[in-house]
Amino acid sequence: MSTDFFKGIEKATYEGPDSTNPMAFHHYNPEEVVMGKTMAEHLRFAIAYWHSFAWEGGDPFGGQTFERPWYPQDDMARAKLKADVAFEMFEILGAPFYCWHDADVRPEQGNFADNLSTLNEMVDYFGEKQEATGINLLWGTANMFSHRRWMSGASTNPDPDVFAFAAATVKSCMDATMKLGGQNYVLWGGREGYETLINTDMGAELDHMGRFLNMVVEYKHKIGFKGQILVEPKPQEPSKHQYDYDAATCFGFLQKYGLENEVKLNLEQGHAILAGHSFEHEIATATALGVLGSIDMNRNDYQSGWDTDQFPNNVPEVALCYYHILKDGGFTQGGTNFDAKIRRQSLDAEDLIAAHIGGMDVCARGLKAAAAMIEDGGLEDALKERYAGWETPEAKAMLDSDFDTITQRVLADNVNPAPRSGRQEILENYINRFV
Amino acid sequence: MSTDFFKGIEKATYEGPDSTNPMAFHHYNPEEVVMGKTMAEHLRFAIAYWHSFAWEGGDPFGGQTFERPWYPQDDMARAKLKADVAFEMFEILGAPFYCWHDADVRPEQGNFADNLSTLNEMVDYFGEKQEATGINLLWGTANMFSHRRWMSGASTNPDPDVFAFAAATVKSCMDATMKLGGQNYVLWGGREGYETLINTDMGAELDHMGRFLNMVVEYKHKIGFKGQILVEPKPQEPSKHQYDYDAATCFGFLQKYGLENEVKLNLEQGHAILAGHSFEHEIATATALGVLGSIDMNRNDYQSGWDTDQFPNNVPEVALCYYHILKDGGFTQGGTNFDAKIRRQSLDAEDLIAAHIGGMDVCARGLKAAAAMIEDGGLEDALKERYAGWETPEAKAMLDSDFDTITQRVLADNVNPAPRSGRQEILENYINRFV
Amino acid sequence: MSTDFFKGIEKATYEGPDSTNPMAFHHYNPEEVVMGKTMAEHLRFAIAYWHSFAWEGGDPFGGQTFERPWYPQDDMARAKLKADVAFEMFEILGAPFYCWHDADVRPEQGNFADNLSTLNEMVDYFGEKQEATGINLLWGTANMFSHRRWMSGASTNPDPDVFAFAAATVKSCMDATMKLGGQNYVLWGGREGYETLINTDMGAELDHMGRFLNMVVEYKHKIGFKGQILVEPKPQEPSKHQYDYDAATCFGFLQKYGLENEVKLNLEQGHAILAGHSFEHEIATATALGVLGSIDMNRNDYQSGWDTDQFPNNVPEVALCYYHILKDGGFTQGGTNFDAKIRRQSLDAEDLIAAHIGGMDVCARGLKAAAAMIEDGGLEDALKERYAGWETPEAKAMLDSDFDTITQRVLADNVNPAPRSGRQEILENYINRFV
Amino acid sequence: MSTDFFKGIEKATYEGPDSTNPMAFHHYNPEEVVMGKTMAEHLRFAIAYWHSFAWEGGDPFGGQTFERPWYPQDDMARAKLKADVAFEMFEILGAPFYCWHDADVRPEQGNFADNLSTLNEMVDYFGEKQEATGINLLWGTANMFSHRRWMSGASTNPDPDVFAFAAATVKSCMDATMKLGGQNYVLWGGREGYETLINTDMGAELDHMGRFLNMVVEYKHKIGFKGQILVEPKPQEPSKHQYDYDAATCFGFLQKYGLENEVKLNLEQGHAILAGHSFEHEIATATALGVLGSIDMNRNDYQSGWDTDQFPNNVPEVALCYYHILKDGGFTQGGTNFDAKIRRQSLDAEDLIAAHIGGMDVCARGLKAAAAMIEDGGLEDALKERYAGWETPEAKAMLDSDFDTITQRVLADNVNPAPRSGRQEILENYINRFV
Ligand SMILES: [Co+2]
Ligand SMILES: [Co+2]
Ligand SMILES: [Co+2]
Ligand SMILES: [Co+2]
Ligand SMILES: [Co+2]
Ligand SMILES: [Co+2]
Ligand SMILES: [Co+2]
Ligand SMILES: [Co+2]
Repeated sequence: MSTDFFKGIEKATYEGPDSTNPMAFHHYNPEEVVMGKTMAEHLRFAIAYWHSFAWEGGDPFGGQTFERPWYPQDDMARAKLKADVAFEMFEILGAPFYCWHDADVRPEQGNFADNLSTLNEMVDYFGEKQEATGINLLWGTANMFSHRRWMSGASTNPDPDVFAFAAATVKSCMDATMKLGGQNYVLWGGREGYETLINTDMGAELDHMGRFLNMVVEYKHKIGFKGQILVEPKPQEPSKHQYDYDAATCFGFLQKYGLENEVKLNLEQGHAILAGHSFEHEIATATALGVLGSIDMNRNDYQSGWDTDQFPNNVPEVALCYYHILKDGGFTQGGTNFDAKIRRQSLDAEDLIAAHIGGMDVCARGLKAAAAMIEDGGLEDALKERYAGWETPEAKAMLDSDFDTITQRVLADNVNPAPRSGRQEILENYINRFV
Repeated sequence: MSTDFFKGIEKATYEGPDSTNPMAFHHYNPEEVVMGKTMAEHLRFAIAYWHSFAWEGGDPFGGQTFERPWYPQDDMARAKLKADVAFEMFEILGAPFYCWHDADVRPEQGNFADNLSTLNEMVDYFGEKQEATGINLLWGTANMFSHRRWMSGASTNPDPDVFAFAAATVKSCMDATMKLGGQNYVLWGGREGYETLINTDMGAELDHMGRFLNMVVEYKHKIGFKGQILVEPKPQEPSKHQYDYDAATCFGFLQKYGLENEVKLNLEQGHAILAGHSFEHEIATATALGVLGSIDMNRNDYQSGWDTDQFPNNVPEVALCYYHILKDGGFTQGGTNFDAKIRRQSLDAEDLIAAHIGGMDVCARGLKAAAAMIEDGGLEDALKERYAGWETPEAKAMLDSDFDTITQRVLADNVNPAPRSGRQEILENYINRFV
Repeated sequence: MSTDFFKGIEKATYEGPDSTNPMAFHHYNPEEVVMGKTMAEHLRFAIAYWHSFAWEGGDPFGGQTFERPWYPQDDMARAKLKADVAFEMFEILGAPFYCWHDADVRPEQGNFADNLSTLNEMVDYFGEKQEATGINLLWGTANMFSHRRWMSGASTNPDPDVFAFAAATVKSCMDATMKLGGQNYVLWGGREGYETLINTDMGAELDHMGRFLNMVVEYKHKIGFKGQILVEPKPQEPSKHQYDYDAATCFGFLQKYGLENEVKLNLEQGHAILAGHSFEHEIATATALGVLGSIDMNRNDYQSGWDTDQFPNNVPEVALCYYHILKDGGFTQGGTNFDAKIRRQSLDAEDLIAAHIGGMDVCARGLKAAAAMIEDGGLEDALKERYAGWETPEAKAMLDSDFDTITQRVLADNVNPAPRSGRQEILENYINRFV
Repeated sequence: MSTDFFKGIEKATYEGPDSTNPMAFHHYNPEEVVMGKTMAEHLRFAIAYWHSFAWEGGDPFGGQTFERPWYPQDDMARAKLKADVAFEMFEILGAPFYCWHDADVRPEQGNFADNLSTLNEMVDYFGEKQEATGINLLWGTANMFSHRRWMSGASTNPDPDVFAFAAATVKSCMDATMKLGGQNYVLWGGREGYETLINTDMGAELDHMGRFLNMVVEYKHKIGFKGQILVEPKPQEPSKHQYDYDAATCFGFLQKYGLENEVKLNLEQGHAILAGHSFEHEIATATALGVLGSIDMNRNDYQSGWDTDQFPNNVPEVALCYYHILKDGGFTQGGTNFDAKIRRQSLDAEDLIAAHIGGMDVCARGLKAAAAMIEDGGLEDALKERYAGWETPEAKAMLDSDFDTITQRVLADNVNPAPRSGRQEILENYINRFV
């Protein structure tokens, strides 16, 4: 007995690359084995509750465009209808995971106690649905940026009572995540930053945020939550500046507050781009620093200065991302979340399904190309050859020595290294054989 | 017995704000006391040797526009003529400091031994000039980005011999800086990054760069150099990505390699802007993290995607920068360097002098406005009031507690904080009373 | 008998630069004469109804932060209360003009006939208020971007019925503007562009937009409206690309559709910046092309990729804008509108007033600096000298000749021009004497 | 009897997509027929002389990295050696066309007469080589931006003698282009703009530039040159602002000076991106306005703020560009030029060849995908359906009517259009079937 929101839309199946059916997978074949694991195990797709079900199509210059039977979203009955539709979509797509903010799933009640009670009611409802469908929670998170109470920050708010409200809120969401078997808990600090420095005590705010994140970790251990704690970097928007700017900045923050072994990152392509980085840069940085946790695989328009949260559609870019993820050993508890929304002009239920199918197919193509490059080994061989000098005992000894010793050798041997080609275009051509 | 490069240009003197003499100071009055120190002591102006004397006016689409008697710069006699002219300019401007790269002051010889010998000869020549004029060295640095040997990095080069050449080079520049009584030694890693990730082992390169910087610190202590070791962040250009991206990224790097108490930052406005930050953001970040060392007070055009290194000319912006510097206690060993170049169409000796006078005047206005705001106390009072809640014992106790304790209070007291105005426009208006 | 929304806030008066009263003018002295006109006559300030009264503090990641007695804005009684408060604010500020969109002033009714009827009722109400206060309408405009019917464009919509709805809407707003004595009618095409080219027929859309704008002009003449028709350029946001990208693009569009003598531009600083231009660039472009109509003097954050619509607060920038406006002869029917909103954290009535006072003061300082530069004549003299060669008969004759004639002279005379300094820094220093 | 610069590199041949030979074509098969024409006829590849042979590997922070037997480039014998190598490369690649600036092919002599004489000598040399190889000139152009005489502009220079020098220079290059059978003549105005508005008379400069371009057209007709006259837009770099900002701006300029039927555009992807546009936007704009002439198919890094001029390597992007070109009927006299340079770390002759092979293959894949989409018709059908309403007689009549007539219908019929989905994601998925 389903809602009829997706009436006429069948469960999406794999039909192969030659199919012209827009509602079928052409590349994502969940059971297909790539480098020893199924594609489903590699990609670990998750659907974001907020964009697909809570966002109503508004933008800064216009309001709601969608018309959904669960609007207005201020009522528990409609919250459950929304959940019904959401799980129908997860099943149509064959998505193994989903993600939520508290504010996506229960109506805002205006105070903590009532928010807690409605959240818990919805968690029970989700629990039943997870049980019935086998769909699992990739991560939960608290929305501490939409309600006006958060306008000046959550843990970084000038008002300690807001810190308190945030603490209680995160506790409630961690509890809910644990109850639903969530594999990660995510924090995105959309208001943890500033609108202007002239009214901001940055040092104090960083210390409060550092203490808050330590409380999260302490609470995780107290309750025995086994999931990863993840921070999601984004440089700005909604704030002028957010403290979790990018992967490297977050790593500095984690170290300063003693958390670099406790907290990892949930990286998003759109946020990478807003910070002036490619997504593979952020992924490579996080893997170099040992803090890659999970990804939000939704692109930004390179030329829009705000977060467009579009479904991925550029296979060459996606392939490079999975290349770095596979080199890092692939996901363990993390996965590929679509923090993506259909365009506000994409009004129909069909658009919602097709957008996800397209995104999943693009990821599947990217994964397969990445795996093929790894199996072929061309890039890795070129890297090894380029850095081979560092494998010599002399080079290793040099690293353990000092300026005087090195200078003596430079003078004695007239060390005068000749540059060697970086071969960038040849390697780019190589990659184009796979994508 | 001077060169006649600046023929007809007198030593610049302070004539006050009503003067219309374009070759006089209207605001920078070195002996004027502001907040207990002279303006000269506060600002500690330095002139960059490279832009004013070594850069020939080229850009990516055109070559030399300037015509100087010390061109071509491939000869020691002309290198000394260049030094003569440079010190004449420092005296005309009454600048207490200057800065150099090795490559600015001696011709490139193509091998380390000869570079060392010509560098040392120039250091002796500078020593005499410093003695004669009382002008001092703010900092020295090694140019490890212009010659083709550095094209793939210095300490991060895939070839360990380039690391060796870099080590010898930095040693030689640290020795020279110490000999000249330099108050800081700076490292800017223009090629310490990558052009493309596909041929780059980021983890190895970071480790090499971290070890290199540790060698710098070890060598500093070995030779008893008392100056600050400073890293200058810049996000990109010439590389696609430079590892010393911005203040927060550098801080993460310093911590990872155990250097956060040994190394500080030399921040530049132009680089802040390229990284997507305001200059006061970078300064406030560095002061919050305890790593502000010195500044390069040269602006970028906000709308050009490359480093334009222009002289500062916007007093309101400059005032906010000095506000944060004064709040941090002001410069100790650092200072205000102009890493600035006149436009390539500004051909005349007069342009070179006037540009520096204008920049020094803008800084002087900024400093005085900042000091006036600090003395008035309006901004600081507003900040204290906004964060006053955090001074209560309850708030402090909360920080030492945990999620369970806090949640109990939120529930028990129905904590439901009401937002309070951030008063941004009122504070902006306040600032406009001073600039 | 006033509302008490601004209770305790007096009419703002001019107290001079030394006043520390945050609710008084320090620079804007309406009756003070500058270059032969009062400041009020020069600046012609207008207040935007939408940002100050219709916008509720939302952004893409959060909802309403303000609490106003005229919320929710779905009712005619509250629409009139909003108008009462608005006119109280105009009087407190001594603003001679205001501006509106239809959607700001009347509740959306969901169909054209009811929108028309409520608009007309509000126009009558405004008419009485204008009469009573002496405050006038700078311009009216139609909001054809917020309601979902406009999601794919107004005149450029794929559905001709939307074009029809737009035509009726603009007619109703032009009628209302004329009835209220408005001095301009503005069109901003926030959805006249595309989200993606792959579903867009750009040629057809441009033709429809061109025909629509011709209808506007035809209707203006038919009804005898004497105001200026103005288009407001903006490059993107909300759309990925808007056809009225910047001043130069609009000029090309106007020429293509034969409108360059009928339509002028309303330029906004924030939109200039989003298009990669300085505001003085846009103003100088429009004056060079003869299409400057009016301005929206609200800045963008240079480093936020969306339209922040902040009040101006940088006097040096503002001065250069008025310099170009004064050189063009100053405003005739246009004026200085603040298309500016207080930050969403600026919750209080006092913030609303203070923000406008600060903006008006900054404009007053800019105007006075611009006037002083014009009266001093230094910039204009430098310009004349730089281009003096073009005033010779030989140069004028050359422009009337051809490549063969010119080449003969180049060869015969061995024409080999030597570059002359552009003196940028000296001119920048000159400007800093005035700001 | 060849130079041995490319020793060991054979003529590149088509080996098909499964080949792993990095020096062979995998997709570009010149004789393969696509939509009725060979790939060679469709793509009309051209090689840029400057990047591959004249650029020495410098960037703003470093000098020459390449070592070539024709350096230093100040001698006619080496200029001919350079030409020999260039034609060897054109033959290895099987490129039917090449392009040059005068300054690429002859050493700068410092005066017009000598520049003319060496240019003409090189033109004769090229003429023989074209004859011998069958390789043709796609376009010639004059470099009026590198030498210091151009620092303040060519036709827009404040000094009319520079205008004269520019006129003589362009005449000489048009003569040379005609003599070599060039199919187009291009103007890129890298210094036709300003560094700062404060020393610039924009109106006068635009008029001079407009007159200059009219002289170009007059001279074309006088000498009977049958090629296209093309302007290449670029928004900035080297100048802060260039007047030929983008396609729409150029179209406005052409109209203002009566040239819209005489001059077309040479569009470059890198320049599109610097202007904030996608390349397909610029192409679609030019085709909508009827001024598409030719393209430079070299990409920019989206995240570097300067022109990186890299070889294309993203097939999905390239496919959309050719889709718009094919919809416009394909190239007539224009073609696909690579205004692309290998990275400065790509030192070897092999890099130069491989980079072009990769670029040509990417274009071939893009072209074939574009052709397949056109033949399938899915995008065009969706477009037709979306705009079908405009094909009705009622819609056409509405365009010929007026606001009163339309408003009567809106009221009479209660026109209240319901939005329809834009189907963006479904169309994006469709495209991904082809790329
Ligand atoms: Co996002
Ligand atoms: Co995300
Ligand atoms: Co710089
Ligand atoms: Co610097
Ligand atoms: Co705006
Ligand atoms: Co506006
Ligand atoms: Co280019
Ligand atoms: Co080009």
